Amino acid sequence: MPTLCATVDFEPIGKRVQVEPGATLLEAARLAGVPLTSDCGGAGTCGQCRVVAREAGPALSPPNATEQARLAADELAAGCRLACQARVLGDVKVDLPPSSLRVGQRLQLEGGIRTAPAGEAVLRAIALTVPPATLADPRGDLDRVLDTLAAEHGLAGLRAAPAAVRTLPALLRAHTWQATVLVRGSEIIGFLPPTAHPLGLAVDLGTTKVAAYLVDLATGQTLAADGRPNPQIGYGEDVISRLAYAARPGGARELAQAVHHTLAELVATLAAQAGVDAAHLAEACIVGNTAMTHLLLELPTAQLAAAPYVPAAAAPQEVRCADLGLPALGDARLYVGPCVAGFVGADHVAMILSAGLDRAERTALGIDIGTNTEIVLARRGQARLASLSCASGPAFEGAHIRAGMRAALGAIERVEIDKGCARVQTVGGAPAAGICGSGILDAVAELRRAGAINARGRLQPGAAGVRAGRDGLEFLLVPAGETATGSDISLCQHDIDEIQMAKGAIQAGIAVLLEATGTRLEELDEVVLAGAFGCYLNIESAVAIGMLPRLPLSRFRQVGNAAGDGARQMLASHTTRARAAEIARRIDYIELTIYPGFRRHYAQALLL
Amino acid sequence: MPTLCATVDFEPIGKRVQVEPGATLLEAARLAGVPLTSDCGGAGTCGQCRVVAREAGPALSPPNATEQARLAADELAAGCRLACQARVLGDVKVDLPPSSLRVGQRLQLEGGIRTAPAGEAVLRAIALTVPPATLADPRGDLDRVLDTLAAEHGLAGLRAAPAAVRTLPALLRAHTWQATVLVRGSEIIGFLPPTAHPLGLAVDLGTTKVAAYLVDLATGQTLAADGRPNPQIGYGEDVISRLAYAARPGGARELAQAVHHTLAELVATLAAQAGVDAAHLAEACIVGNTAMTHLLLELPTAQLAAAPYVPAAAAPQEVRCADLGLPALGDARLYVGPCVAGFVGADHVAMILSAGLDRAERTALGIDIGTNTEIVLARRGQARLASLSCASGPAFEGAHIRAGMRAALGAIERVEIDKGCARVQTVGGAPAAGICGSGILDAVAELRRAGAINARGRLQPGAAGVRAGRDGLEFLLVPAGETATGSDISLCQHDIDEIQMAKGAIQAGIAVLLEATGTRLEELDEVVLAGAFGCYLNIESAVAIGMLPRLPLSRFRQVGNAAGDGARQMLASHTTRARAAEIARRIDYIELTIYPGFRRHYAQALLL
Repeated sequence: MPTLCATVDFEPIGKRVQVEPGATLLEAARLAGVPLTSDCGGAGTCGQCRVVAREAGPALSPPNATEQARLAADELAAGCRLACQARVLGDVKVDLPPSSLRVGQRLQLEGGIRTAPAGEAVLRAIALTVPPATLADPRGDLDRVLDTLAAEHGLAGLRAAPAAVRTLPALLRAHTWQATVLVRGSEIIGFLPPTAHPLGLAVDLGTTKVAAYLVDLATGQTLAADGRPNPQIGYGEDVISRLAYAARPGGARELAQAVHHTLAELVATLAAQAGVDAAHLAEACIVGNTAMTHLLLELPTAQLAAAPYVPAAAAPQEVRCADLGLPALGDARLYVGPCVAGFVGADHVAMILSAGLDRAERTALGIDIGTNTEIVLARRGQARLASLSCASGPAFEGAHIRAGMRAALGAIERVEIDKGCARVQTVGGAPAAGICGSGILDAVAELRRAGAINARGRLQPGAAGVRAGRDGLEFLLVPAGETATGSDISLCQHDIDEIQMAKGAIQAGIAVLLEATGTRLEELDEVVLAGAFGCYLNIESAVAIGMLPRLPLSRFRQVGNAAGDGARQMLASHTTRARAAEIARRIDYIELTIYPGFRRHYAQALLL
Repeated sequence: MPTLCATVDFEPIGKRVQVEPGATLLEAARLAGVPLTSDCGGAGTCGQCRVVAREAGPALSPPNATEQARLAADELAAGCRLACQARVLGDVKVDLPPSSLRVGQRLQLEGGIRTAPAGEAVLRAIALTVPPATLADPRGDLDRVLDTLAAEHGLAGLRAAPAAVRTLPALLRAHTWQATVLVRGSEIIGFLPPTAHPLGLAVDLGTTKVAAYLVDLATGQTLAADGRPNPQIGYGEDVISRLAYAARPGGARELAQAVHHTLAELVATLAAQAGVDAAHLAEACIVGNTAMTHLLLELPTAQLAAAPYVPAAAAPQEVRCADLGLPALGDARLYVGPCVAGFVGADHVAMILSAGLDRAERTALGIDIGTNTEIVLARRGQARLASLSCASGPAFEGAHIRAGMRAALGAIERVEIDKGCARVQTVGGAPAAGICGSGILDAVAELRRAGAINARGRLQPGAAGVRAGRDGLEFLLVPAGETATGSDISLCQHDIDEIQMAKGAIQAGIAVLLEATGTRLEELDEVVLAGAFGCYLNIESAVAIGMLPRLPLSRFRQVGNAAGDGARQMLASHTTRARAAEIARRIDYIELTIYPGFRRHYAQALLL
């Protein structure tokens, strides 16, 4: 009798899923919601989705040519497999190495800036007592609420959709004809028990991570914060792979639902943490890069994926929370902030807002480093802002680096090099498992300072610590005996090339912004660094390799998740939303691919 | 090997469905979308869901005690079954007699009154050409539409939901950056190819029938009209049975989806008839009684089903067309008109609007006869209207009458009695299959005129044509040899009792309205009769038995489907919607159950 399905256990996280025989382990991981890295979206080219089969045997297809090419002999011997290639034939247990798994990575949740939402509120919560229904007063339940709002609060002409009305009859009868009415503009979006507080959700939806905040809208207090990997990572690590996946039949739906599911889980988790009822969610605000918000809302992305890379909509968008599967009050809304261009999204606008770069008080750069790095230049006394996006790649997130990993437990995050020997510091002080962005940045800066690489980034044969390795010259960071993996952790020439390209893109972007606006470096009063990597990076190293401009350290400000903070500010205030829309309008977007001097700047910026 | 499913063929309409063995034929009919009558909702008490098995055999469970009690021996011998009792055991073909099947019944689609929608339009269709997207102009697609609307049409601050935006990128690129933008208030609800016209749908959603009109919103022209039985009939013929079904777990969803499905079919059918694209539906307007619109919108109905019978919402409601599964433009809306009370719905408001009874130009009664009959009294020069609803029952729709049927092919619709002999006229001139409301009304009036019944409605033994029958005294209308069924068609005492109760309810309602408002009969300038039965009934007969007031025939006006006409007027005009809301506010609802003189009026009104 043929086996109809097979069980896959993912360890150490303890997720189990049943699949049809023939499915790849990557497909099984997606099904199980396991955020397995897959830069290439399953094409077998990135080699990131390494997993280890617990026992050899007929439960998995034998390693194919792709795996034999991408995996070292000792890896293959140890049961290491590429999840996108290995097919499930029977029940199997696989181990997920930290470098393949996104769970547990450090998520930058707290923005450095805190401003109470101000101005006109998005929602009003109004406590009401209405006359009970009787045979002599047979008005509808909603109608007695509308009449009372008009008579006692001067609010006439309000309306409510069926989704909002559905809970009303039972609520009024359970609470002696009392309820708290939630009014949003001219609409009633739902009803709460008399003493309950409406909840708000603010989300920074990044390409790799989702940071979420639960807010008590009555007090403005943040009740809980949490983060998850973006589950779309399993469909491709970068934006372009995901847009390609979205172009397949049903692909856009699948990507959207993956994120909807994660958001719903986050709401449930945050509400449980805070001890509140998730169904009282009354308003949500999401920011993210343009592709992420388009995929979230199932907006068309074909025109985003090809020149001239335009959004379907840059204006703010609103949908029902329920349409995204969020536990929420009946007609609660989700607001997605305004974006600027195909590669400058609402998260950039939120960052500018949070850091106050639109105030025209200082001449300042705002930089949010990621797979795409968005940079804004604000000039003292000038209303217009200039922004651009540079394709810095995922190297600072540990991708495309031989020993690269995210800033999870055991990641090398600081490196000092002295006489050819590296001294490293890891996340959580754990044995080194790999190296994350801030560690690589340090290492390259230190290698250059120590003369182990030249200005063109070439490892220098004969320099202290430089040795011949599997992939040519390399520099040892941690010997096998001290690592969590039992293998040496070293940087090879290819790793350094990746960092050069990443930093070169950012450095060239800054140079173009300054040139295009006629701004001299010395005029910069401030450089704001946002995001997780921007928060943890060693500024001296970044300046040393030329990625950041050579300015006094006091002019740099590391603000953490400014995009998330901006989302929280936009959550409850119409005034702040109007300010965000105004910021989006005031941005002059510079498209690097048609900027005349870009190639020259980039070539120069590759030098260390 | 056990049979896993069985095929049921419903003839003559040719619907086929597969069910699990053990399902009742009624369940199979519901699954197949066959509108089988079931007054009692499947309890086995109404005997309306008669079907005839094509061949005897093991494909159906043998007739049970309920069937043996409710079916005559000759019926049982002929293979007649109650669909709610007979269980499917194997593949079976059943015939649906016209009296059990609602398909093909006469639907009153055309209102007698035609007024072009006037005033402020609900939708604006604006043809635009926008600047093409280039690397130098990377604005979002929506944003270039918004900018052009602001610059060329002075329309600023518009917004569009993702559902509206989804088609835009492909549309602009297919039509050289041209599109027709549909603006509804401050929202863009969708985009059409440059030369297409937006479509509108107006629906009168009755307890027994659904009448729908497809309108070209650019020209105001009605392109097609069609009607369907309300598919909820299979869940109970009257409102109360359906509210009981809605109280079951999942019942409300099931009832709503049945109607959504019928509406979607109607849109597709109407669009095909008119040769237009159903996906260009941009606005819909539905009126119906309060229970029907609540069930449509899945609003709570528990409080509708018990005193004081209040709506969850009487105010107009709006939902996305897509939320009801209608083929429509992305963010197209469905507007459900305002209702007044639990038993006075938006269809009543639409009737008043269509007949102009709110103009205070005449003192007039407006009567829409159905299972519940709603009556309004408008008085010359007075803003307030008085309305009530009386439980007239389904007798005028042929239910609870031994030979009753709807006004379908073969229904007796006119009766004259001369010397104990009846002369009948049938729908379509076909052999008589049963008797519909207008026929019964005629028959009772004629029996009374001929002295075959007395003022209390008792059949008089010895009167010409009165004979002893199966259920006591009866009066033969058509002998077996001339009928389609091969059985005598006669009226028995019980039938006459039903008509007395029905007409008594209406007559008492009119009396209460006049009394409560201090209006004398002679003051009535006009009596407006709306709806299918109101359109076809013989006014002289209705006056003769006292159901309608004794006034000159010239004061009666039969206006057809005034509710559907009102829905069409509300479809496209904000001004008319505001007028409908105003009508709903101006109605003083009279609750008969607490009106002091009601029982006395009713007792008097039972007399013929």
